[in-house]
Amino acid sequence: MQALILNFVTTIEKLVIDDPRRIVHSFKVALAITLVSTVYYLKPLYKDMGDASLWAVMTVVVVFEYTAGATLCKGMNRGLATLLGGALGIGAKYLASLSGPKAEPIVLGCIIFLLAASATFSRFIPHIKKRYDYGVMIFILTFSLVAVSGYRVDKIIELAYQRLSTIIIGCATCIIISICVCPVWAGEDLHNLVVSNLEKLASFLEAGFGGQIPFEGDGVNSSNEPDKSSCLVAYKSVLNSKAAEESLANFAWWEPGHGKFGLYHPWKQYLKIGVASRQCGSHIEALNGYLDANFQISSELRKRVEEPCIKMCSEAGTTLKELANSMKSFSCPLKSTMHLQTCKEAVDEVNAMLKASFVGEFDILEITPIIRVVSMLIEIVKCVETIHVAIEELSEQAHFKMLLGDDEKPQVHHDGGAVACLDDHDNQEDNDFVKVIIHKIPSESLEIEIIGDKKPFEKQLVCSHCPKHMDVDGY
Amino acid sequence: MQALILNFVTTIEKLVIDDPRRIVHSFKVALAITLVSTVYYLKPLYKDMGDASLWAVMTVVVVFEYTAGATLCKGMNRGLATLLGGALGIGAKYLASLSGPKAEPIVLGCIIFLLAASATFSRFIPHIKKRYDYGVMIFILTFSLVAVSGYRVDKIIELAYQRLSTIIIGCATCIIISICVCPVWAGEDLHNLVVSNLEKLASFLEAGFGGQIPFEGDGVNSSNEPDKSSCLVAYKSVLNSKAAEESLANFAWWEPGHGKFGLYHPWKQYLKIGVASRQCGSHIEALNGYLDANFQISSELRKRVEEPCIKMCSEAGTTLKELANSMKSFSCPLKSTMHLQTCKEAVDEVNAMLKASFVGEFDILEITPIIRVVSMLIEIVKCVETIHVAIEELSEQAHFKMLLGDDEKPQVHHDGGAVACLDDHDNQEDNDFVKVIIHKIPSESLEIEIIGDKKPFEKQLVCSHCPKHMDVDGY
Repeated sequence: MQALILNFVTTIEKLVIDDPRRIVHSFKVALAITLVSTVYYLKPLYKDMGDASLWAVMTVVVVFEYTAGATLCKGMNRGLATLLGGALGIGAKYLASLSGPKAEPIVLGCIIFLLAASATFSRFIPHIKKRYDYGVMIFILTFSLVAVSGYRVDKIIELAYQRLSTIIIGCATCIIISICVCPVWAGEDLHNLVVSNLEKLASFLEAGFGGQIPFEGDGVNSSNEPDKSSCLVAYKSVLNSKAAEESLANFAWWEPGHGKFGLYHPWKQYLKIGVASRQCGSHIEALNGYLDANFQISSELRKRVEEPCIKMCSEAGTTLKELANSMKSFSCPLKSTMHLQTCKEAVDEVNAMLKASFVGEFDILEITPIIRVVSMLIEIVKCVETIHVAIEELSEQAHFKMLLGDDEKPQVHHDGGAVACLDDHDNQEDNDFVKVIIHKIPSESLEIEIIGDKKPFEKQLVCSHCPKHMDVDGY
Repeated sequence: MQALILNFVTTIEKLVIDDPRRIVHSFKVALAITLVSTVYYLKPLYKDMGDASLWAVMTVVVVFEYTAGATLCKGMNRGLATLLGGALGIGAKYLASLSGPKAEPIVLGCIIFLLAASATFSRFIPHIKKRYDYGVMIFILTFSLVAVSGYRVDKIIELAYQRLSTIIIGCATCIIISICVCPVWAGEDLHNLVVSNLEKLASFLEAGFGGQIPFEGDGVNSSNEPDKSSCLVAYKSVLNSKAAEESLANFAWWEPGHGKFGLYHPWKQYLKIGVASRQCGSHIEALNGYLDANFQISSELRKRVEEPCIKMCSEAGTTLKELANSMKSFSCPLKSTMHLQTCKEAVDEVNAMLKASFVGEFDILEITPIIRVVSMLIEIVKCVETIHVAIEELSEQAHFKMLLGDDEKPQVHHDGGAVACLDDHDNQEDNDFVKVIIHKIPSESLEIEIIGDKKPFEKQLVCSHCPKHMDVDGY
């Protein structure tokens, strides 16, 4: 018994720690129900609404969902479906009443049967199932209720009006509370989910598969075991995020613009990034399984490919990390381009290394696992590239900004161009890169002037990929 | 406009052809709604129930789901939650009335707030979310409705009784129609889904990746293009079946025994098979992608591994096919064991082939793609083995039968053992196997007598793996 209670408490604790907004959500729902039920307690409101005011309570319980998008989806569906169903129900009642009092229930029954059957079937249509499933259900519900009760209640229009208005009160309460009191935006959650998935993959790659990929011999694996297993759990969750991403994207579609997300934010692009991330994750899983089982061989070839492989792995991780960072800050992916470039160079290096190995230098059995690992790493790099392209598309579609560091101010020249010189303070690996961001593109020629007393560097221009959205902050 | 209508008609047609039960389901829902609404039309019934009879209509619309399991899940949840919520609601109303008429709405409001908040939070607990989510929602709904309306309605117990009885009428109508009229069993659907996924993988493997794996040169690919692309679409659907399998397994839990599925059918085991199938599918996808992109090399080594690779691929396919067949017929997987054995022998053969190749005989660049393809094929064989083990576990848990062919009768001997001799009439590849199935195991020694004038064969005993469940049909 004690164990059961302890278990229960641990579950609750975990739920709260994982996402404290769950507690807030529970209180929001309770608040909405309590607010709406006052309609019933207060005499003046009760006079107008009558017993129908209970529908407001019901609506709140049924419509209030965890994210604002889901609540909006259900609220809008319920409101519109009630309106449509009520109107058609009244129409059906009048149509049936034309056929005389005896035939009326039969005619009503037939109309309800046909409409219910076709509406139920329409719920199988993919597009309706995706967005309006709940609405169609409420439509059938309201239509049947109004049409049926029309048989005994005379003041059918008044009834329909009462019902509609209480449902609107309920929906409005839900939507207002869900949007105004600590809102949980499905869009923001989707954004964070995609970013955190990228970070999980990145940290696994950067750590070099828990110390295995750096080819540091077999003794290292066992010492890194706990670290690796936590990493493993982390990237496994990436593989199972499909359903969550799709439902969040679906609800995000209903949400108004909020924070840095506009009304027409390209939510679909997140699904693309998600697909590529899962692809990358499954390659990582395959390689990881292979390393666990087979990787015990040391050889001359292994020593040759060791360095570029470590580079490939860590640069792929850094690329993903920079992509995640640029998504976090809603800025164009710039740094990641460089890391991806280094990563691809490492791939070329390994390929060249293999090509240069003398014919017949090695034993097939000896080199087989090395070749497998290398080719799996190359697959991972390909996936990282796909993710990079998808995020670049997102940055273009969502008008991500060109971001300047906080301590750097753009240098303005009087010829109409503004040139900012940035140095990668936060990334010591890239000392030979200097980012030059051009604020206004001069009509004809472009002169780049580097100002300041920095270290010597190679003059290299990084293509910004989104020259149209160069609103530099603080300029 | 015409195009729109045509498009719409095509969509509807496709929905009906894909699953004609959808039409039946629509009519079942309409029938249930119409039946329940007669409660309202018929005077004697209306007298008992009053306006509350509308709740029966509402219940039907909300509870009736596509599969019997889902309907049962929602129906049971709704019934029990209404009972519990109603009882607690009445309790709350009496508790509040003790505090005097002025404080009553305030006390009621507080109770509702606390209960709604904690019940809403409980919906986040994974176990409740999985099975009782709808029930908790209805509990909050009923509790709030009864507690709130108790403030103005005096005959609160009568109201609660009416509401409960109409909801029970609604739920019962749904459950009876959903189980008795052309039932759609979630369990059966799950079984069929898993079987068809195995078949899709099998046909892709048996066809040798649309003619690519047999290493028949590059010209063959293009001629097989349409055939291959249809195969591709088929196995891709395997990769996306996770959500469907999980929800079906969840609903199957609620279903009573039906057909060959007992009340305690091991539905969870299907999820295991599903996971292994998807794993296999993703390996196939990886290999397929690799073949599309890279496989252009011919070499001496390729010629050597060609035959065992073709064997590996086709035998893996046949194993899956036989596994699907044994699931279809609810019989122990026997034939598949043999094919898996052949498959593993082919793996050993390839490994030996690689081992025997002289050190330094080949160029690394030349053999890399061949080694990759071979090792991917080996991974696929491993997955097939996992599937095989999972299905054997299923056959044991679900008491699958040892199946005899229709035209074979077991031969009975007077020493207490019954020996049946089966010949693989339907599988011409296995002519050198004869299955011997022993019905009763004699206490001490076992003599096997082969009866009939069959072709010469090797005497080979196939372990049956499930000797406990040897109830031979027709004996």
